[in-house]
Parts: sequence; structure tokens; C-alpha cells
Amino acid sequence: MKPAVEVVEITLPRPRLSDQRSDERRLREALQERLGEVPEIPLSVLKDLPERLRASDFAVRVVLGRREKGPVVLEVRSPGDERPILGLGIDLGSTGVALYLVDFLARRVVGKATFRNPQIPYGEDILTRLHFAHRPEGLSELQEKTLRGLKEEIRKLAGEDTKHLYYYAFCGNTTMTHFFLGLPTRWLYREPYIPTANWVEVLRLRELGLPGHPEGLLFVFPSGGSYFGGDLISGLLSVGLHRSAELALFVDVGTNAEIVLGNREFLLACAGAAGPALEGGVLSCGMQAREGAIEGVRIRDGRVEVRTIGRARPRGICGSGAIELLAELFVSGLVNPQGIFQPEKFPGRFREIRGEKAFILAFEDETAHGRPIYVTQGEIKNLIRSKGAMYTMLTVICESLGVRFEDLERIYVAGSFGSHIDPEAAITIGMLPDLPREKFQSVGNAAGDGTVKFLLEGSFEEVREIVSRLTYLEMNVENRFMQLLTGALFLPHTNLELFPSVKEKLGLRHA
Amino acid sequence: MKPAVEVVEITLPRPRLSDQRSDERRLREALQERLGEVPEIPLSVLKDLPERLRASDFAVRVVLGRREKGPVVLEVRSPGDERPILGLGIDLGSTGVALYLVDFLARRVVGKATFRNPQIPYGEDILTRLHFAHRPEGLSELQEKTLRGLKEEIRKLAGEDTKHLYYYAFCGNTTMTHFFLGLPTRWLYREPYIPTANWVEVLRLRELGLPGHPEGLLFVFPSGGSYFGGDLISGLLSVGLHRSAELALFVDVGTNAEIVLGNREFLLACAGAAGPALEGGVLSCGMQAREGAIEGVRIRDGRVEVRTIGRARPRGICGSGAIELLAELFVSGLVNPQGIFQPEKFPGRFREIRGEKAFILAFEDETAHGRPIYVTQGEIKNLIRSKGAMYTMLTVICESLGVRFEDLERIYVAGSFGSHIDPEAAITIGMLPDLPREKFQSVGNAAGDGTVKFLLEGSFEEVREIVSRLTYLEMNVENRFMQLLTGALFLPHTNLELFPSVKEKLGLRHA
Repeated sequence: MKPAVEVVEITLPRPRLSDQRSDERRLREALQERLGEVPEIPLSVLKDLPERLRASDFAVRVVLGRREKGPVVLEVRSPGDERPILGLGIDLGSTGVALYLVDFLARRVVGKATFRNPQIPYGEDILTRLHFAHRPEGLSELQEKTLRGLKEEIRKLAGEDTKHLYYYAFCGNTTMTHFFLGLPTRWLYREPYIPTANWVEVLRLRELGLPGHPEGLLFVFPSGGSYFGGDLISGLLSVGLHRSAELALFVDVGTNAEIVLGNREFLLACAGAAGPALEGGVLSCGMQAREGAIEGVRIRDGRVEVRTIGRARPRGICGSGAIELLAELFVSGLVNPQGIFQPEKFPGRFREIRGEKAFILAFEDETAHGRPIYVTQGEIKNLIRSKGAMYTMLTVICESLGVRFEDLERIYVAGSFGSHIDPEAAITIGMLPDLPREKFQSVGNAAGDGTVKFLLEGSFEEVREIVSRLTYLEMNVENRFMQLLTGALFLPHTNLELFPSVKEKLGLRHA
Repeated sequence: MKPAVEVVEITLPRPRLSDQRSDERRLREALQERLGEVPEIPLSVLKDLPERLRASDFAVRVVLGRREKGPVVLEVRSPGDERPILGLGIDLGSTGVALYLVDFLARRVVGKATFRNPQIPYGEDILTRLHFAHRPEGLSELQEKTLRGLKEEIRKLAGEDTKHLYYYAFCGNTTMTHFFLGLPTRWLYREPYIPTANWVEVLRLRELGLPGHPEGLLFVFPSGGSYFGGDLISGLLSVGLHRSAELALFVDVGTNAEIVLGNREFLLACAGAAGPALEGGVLSCGMQAREGAIEGVRIRDGRVEVRTIGRARPRGICGSGAIELLAELFVSGLVNPQGIFQPEKFPGRFREIRGEKAFILAFEDETAHGRPIYVTQGEIKNLIRSKGAMYTMLTVICESLGVRFEDLERIYVAGSFGSHIDPEAAITIGMLPDLPREKFQSVGNAAGDGTVKFLLEGSFEEVREIVSRLTYLEMNVENRFMQLLTGALFLPHTNLELFPSVKEKLGLRHA
């Protein structure tokens, strides 16, 4: 396991008449002996090499970056040079972006940042942005805005002096990756849905004008196709499904829900538009999981309690908050199994907003902005459609391999931006199967964590393995999906026997 | 044997719902099947790929450039696109530069140019230029002037539209290679004589700002050490010493004489300052082998006949002309074996010029510029010192391996810039050993021809083989050299038995 950036302390034999090797050969051969691989040495490094070697009497600290075909010397330093050696993970979500600053010497994350995707002014949803990209110069404008936004945030996180950034690992869905690299998306969203590229060689940061060391490198997580992007590959790398003996399910609740069933023998994936509502983004009071986002809800004894990120006054509802809200509304009887509000049980909490019934989660005087935070009847229906689609996808993917839910040994639940989904709530609304809770593992932003893992472990082979092993189950052409969906559009399901723990919970309520 | 640039006509399977591979993967896999290697595809090629593929219904012509670790896609064209696909060989001599324009489709040289090294204003001799390079910004100024001069001449040769140039192969001695790449030379010319680099990875043309295709590549011939540069490696590649069963000697008469003895079993090299006078460059009437250069001389029956390049009116003497001149002066008795002029035999041809006796090769009214062309007594002495050093080096290198001259099966005589040295004349003055004439092969500018060979055959492995097999025999520390030199400072030698054919020739003259 070799990290994306390696630092090697090495002392070269001094030149003499009986050893007239060039500085380049002297360094290369010493590194080859140490690493077991022949490193590349770029021209810019060679230009400084003679002085660097002689400044510290041929004892040097060498910074190497990994490309798939072998290491590249990025810098030769004096051994006492303790300036930081950093890397950057980027998870470019279509709504939010997460950055991870990695210290290669300490081998850990030393800083994080999240911010809104700079493309949002070009369209909240991806389709609008794709249309914009088809205009003349549209793609390059989108790319330029994306890169400019990234650069600004990278400088905020890493400081103005970015030349200590030696390696980036980037992931995003297929469209985000295309926009980031400036690759055409014209054929991606029309039948038969062909991306321009799945796998791009390690690039130099300067090819995209990204801030960092002049020889700094960039790894872009490959996509497996138009439906499963580099973010999914990165997420799988992070949780390690492909190396596990256990049969496991990976569920990533993003704008697009992505599901992978497998272990070290096989990986079967499917994806679908189950996500938006579950992510919180499309609710009228939805927001990303930032300070002030309601991430937890309790409705007990006629009282509503909310838990916000950073314990701040509430500003909106994030994805995990929306799931808990729906679970609590259901368990407390404020929505019925069909998803219809039952306002008579708690009339003070219901209002008419823009002609639609709404449940008030926080009143004007409780919030940070002085406006109420609520969810409408239509939004509840959307949430139920999303959770129903998710559950149905899980059912179909397991059925297609003859796997029963009980056979699953682990379920990884990922969600972008640190919003950790509570399995209890997700089971209560019938989004995830009713299995022993210890089988569930909430892994947060697995895609982002995968970029960090790549930086610390240089996992080219693993990434190739995941991509080559992954097969895709097309949901849209599965009649079975539509057959099964209807039952899942209830809370938790028309067949309550599928959710014994929920049945028990509801029984207790009525008892 | 794969050329530096390969052109592949290929038809890709069209995308459909059952084959949703990206354009990148579709192309890469088809090329992999054809080539047996996985090609790299740079970002700029990916950006155009979807439109290029669909413009010709997935039948394309792919231009690939070779790097040591495998091929790179440089361009994807429509199959009917017949624009040229060219390469450029550069031999950067310290005095003159030669360019070779290669057509990869026709697999041959389609244009040549020679011109003076643009560094000459910074010093006729290399040492002056090395001193200049040590000034602040000196190196970058020298590099910049070199590149600017090259660019101008490349545009003259290849036309203003240089984007059809996909690959360069460059050779030069170690100093020239350092100047070209902008690598420090500070430690190259002081003990223990350490170059910055021997081997540089294939570069992109744009890294040096050289004209050509945006993804165009550059191979730089490696040097074996400070004494034998990329030009020698290129020359050896051209004549194929390293692949021959015959025991052969390679003699390159340049500013520095370079000699290699060997065959496919071993290669032993030495170098020394035998060259300058033999190259013609340092004579007061010396010039490069261009139109008007005297390349052949006959002195018979009291008449002097000169042969010029292009049959033009004479302008000066080139290297091969100087060797023939000395041979003719000696055979006709106008210089004696000690190298002293014997003016009494042909008084009308001798004059005093700047206080020194001189032989007039062409009078004022015979030349292109209206000035006489001559050689002085001091220059004759210089020529003899050079030829003596050359012969002594040949003796020492053969002796060191217990090889007699008679054991040599072939002698390749290379000289820069097309001045083909006449072995007969070179033997007459005692510069080359007196062996059957059919063993000599005059190979012109072997270094330049090596760049062409590299372009047409992509000979990375052979180049590595030559470099790794070459060992260096240090002349300066060989006492034997000084012991032997004295005898060689006569025409042809103090021991006339070493030159039986010259002895016979002299006998005939006196008969």
C-alpha cells in the first residue's frame, strides 16, 4: 500500500572521478533501490537538482507522487525542510461540495470545508445545467465557474500559499466529473447515454489551473457509466465492500440514490431518482447539513423537539432531519399510512401555506431567520415516493440475485455532507428493510472519505478492481420495479409483516 | 519495431443501450486490441472525442506517439483526413545544427536544413558559452536564444503551420543537451565532471515552447556521461555498431573527436580534443560544409585543383577539404614529414600573411568573395596535432583491448554536416590506420541520421542498450597516450611501416 504522496529520506553517494553518474541518474538509481520502481523525474525538478543535492551534501528528502505506472519525483528538499506536505480530497456533489485537507506526514485529515456547488446559479437541477452546457461556450463557462469556485474555497482552507498541495483526489457523479474536466456532456443524457470518458489518466494540477505545487498531480475517480459516477466508486472504496467476505449493501442517499449489493466476489449496482427529497434539498424549507439545519426531530406528548447541527437556532431541514420528521409524524399519528396529514391530533401545528396544508416544525419566533420552518402535504407525498422508490430498488436488487434481506450481513448507509441518517427512522418510514439495528452502519459522506483513502493509500488497483467488478442493474427496464413500488408507497408498507419492529412500535402507540 | 508516431485506422463499435461504454473506453479498448498495449489519452483529445467519433460514424484515423512506457493518443482524425503527419530530427552541434523533416506515412526524410548554432554569438568555443551560462540568467538566455533560433529554422523548413509536427528527436553533446533543456552546467565542467541529467523522459513539445501539435512529443537522446553525449549515442544507433557481429570502429570527427570500438558484445568509447582543426572550423579560411566550401583538393603537375560543394566559386575550406589539402601538400612534397612548408617546390603558391608563411589554395580572382583562401604554417601544425591525437586515440583504444588494427572488420567515419571524409586522404596523413579501403565506410552525419532512425523505429530499447553497454576509456589519464603521440606528430608517422600504402605512394612519387 503506497500513498499518493510518499516522502523518502535518502543519502546519495557523492560524485567522484570513479563515479561520474549524473545527478539525475544518481537520484533515480538510489530511489529505484529504495522503492523497487523507477521514478520519473520532470524537467523542472532536474533544473534545481544540482543545487538541491549540493546544498545538503547529497542527503535529501524527496517528495514523490504516484501515477498508475509508477512514481514521479515532485520535489527534492533538504532533509531539515519541515514545510507541510498536503493533499486535497474533493467531492463535487451537484448540490454541495466537500473538501478534505490531508497531511501526508501525519497521515490524517487536518481540515474540512463544505460549500454550495458554484454551478447552482446555472440551474438547481442537473438537467438545466446540461442544457446550459450545450450552448456555445456554455461548457467552458460552467467549467470555469466550477474551477474558480473551487480555487477560492481551496485557498480559504489551505491558505494563500498553496504550493504545499502535492496531490488532489477528485470525485463526483459522471456529469460533475465531465463539467470539472470540461468534457462534453452532449451524448451523456440522450439515448444510449454515452459519457465522453470513464477513466482519465492522472493529470497535472496545472492542466486545470488548480492551485498547488507546480508538479502537483490530480486523480479523478473514474465512472462506471453514465449512472454510477466516481462518487459511487469512491464511496465503495471507502467502505471496502469489494474486500469484504460479508454480503453487504451500500446505500448512498444523494440527489440520485445509488445502491450496491455485493462482497469481494461481486458488485451489483443500481441507481434511481429516489434521492432528492430524502436529501432535504428540494423541500421548501430544505437545506444542506450545515449549522442550523434540523437533523433530528422528536414528537412526544404533544411537544415537538428539534435537534440542530451546532445546536444553533434552526434555519431549515436537512436530509436526515426530513427522514426523522416523517418517521415521527407517522408514529405520532399526524400522518396516516397513506401519508395524509391528520391535523386534528395537533391542530396548533398545522397551517395553510400557499393554498396547501403544512406542518409547522418551528414557529417564527423559534427560528434563526424569523420565518417558520415547515413541511407541506405535497412534500410529504414526495418524501414517501422517494422512500418507496428506495425500498423498491433494494427489493429488486436483492431479488435479482435471490438474496433475502435477512441474508444481508451489513448495510452501509451513506449520505452526503455529514448528515448521518438514523436507521431507526429510515426503517420506521419503510425506506430501509427492518433488520437488526446492529447491521446498519451510518458512514456519512463515504464519497468524500474515499478521496481521503485514495490520498493515503494510492489505491489505483483497488479502484480498477471496483470498476471492473461492478455490473449495473437497469431499474427503468425492470417491470418488477413498478409491480413492487405500489406497496412501498405506504408508511411503512402495505404489507406490515415486512416491518415487524414498526408494527410493534405502532402497536405500542395504540396500546 | 514501432515508430515514434503510428497511424492506426480503426472502426469502433457504435454505442447502443447494450454497449454503453464511454467514447474514451470504446477507443481505448479498440486500440488496445489492435496494438497489444493500453494507450494513454490526454484531456485535450478527450474534449474533441465525441464529435470526432460521430463525424465519421466511429471510423477514425488515430495518431499515436510513443513514450517508453507505451503509446499516447495525439489526435483522432476522420479517415479521409490526408494532412501530413510529420516528425523532426534535430542534431544540435556546437557549431552547426542540422534538421531533418520526416514523413511518418511515407517513412522517409522529406526535407533537410543546416544552419549555424544560434549560441555562437555567446562564444565560438564551448568554454566561453559555459562561462556565460554561469552568469545570473545566463543559462536561460542561452536556452532562449537556442530555442528561438531553432523555432525560426523549423518554421522555414516545415512551414508556418507546424501543427502537423507530432514528434521531435533531439541529439547533441552533453553541453548542448543541457543548454537546450535549460539544465545547469555548473558541475559539468569541473572535477569530477557531473552532468545534471543523462536521461530525460519524453517531454511534451509545449514544455519547451517548441512549434508543433499541442500534444506533440520530444525525445532527447541520453548522454552516457559528460564526455559522450546524445549525439554519439544517436550516431551509434544509426550505424548499428551495437547489433553487429563484426568488430568495428566508429570515428566521429566533430569538435570533439569521439571513438567507439565494439560490436554486439561490448562498446568501448573514448573522446578527445582531436577534432577542431579537422572539422575546418578553426582554420582562418575554414567554414562549414556548405555551398562554396572546398571539400576536395588535387595538386598535380604544378597545378592546384579544388572541388567545391555545389560546384560554386570557393568561399573557404571545410573539414574534409582540410584533410585532403594536407594529404596533397604532403604527397606533392610541399610539406615535409615534420609538417614544414617546402615553398621552393611551388614558390608562386606561397605568401607571407600576417607574418606567417601561407599556402594559397585559391587566389583572389578565383574566389567568391575576392579574398584569397589559404592555410598557414601554424594551421598545418594544428592539423597535424589533431590527426596525431586521433591516430593515437585509435591506437590506445585498440591496444587496451588487445585488438590489432588488422582485426577491425569495419571502420565507420562520421563527420558532421555531410562533409564526407575521404579515407584515402585521412590514411595518407596518418590520421586513420592503413587498412584495406573497402573496410572504411563514410557515414556523414551519423548523429543526425540517428534521430531519423529513432523517429521511424521508436528505438527506446536500443538506445537504453547502447547507453548501458557503453564503457568509457579515460584518455587523459592514460600515460600510453603521451608515449604514443610523439610518433604520430609526423606525416604519416615516424614509423612508416605502419603505413605501407603511403610508403608505396611516396616511393612512386620519388621514382
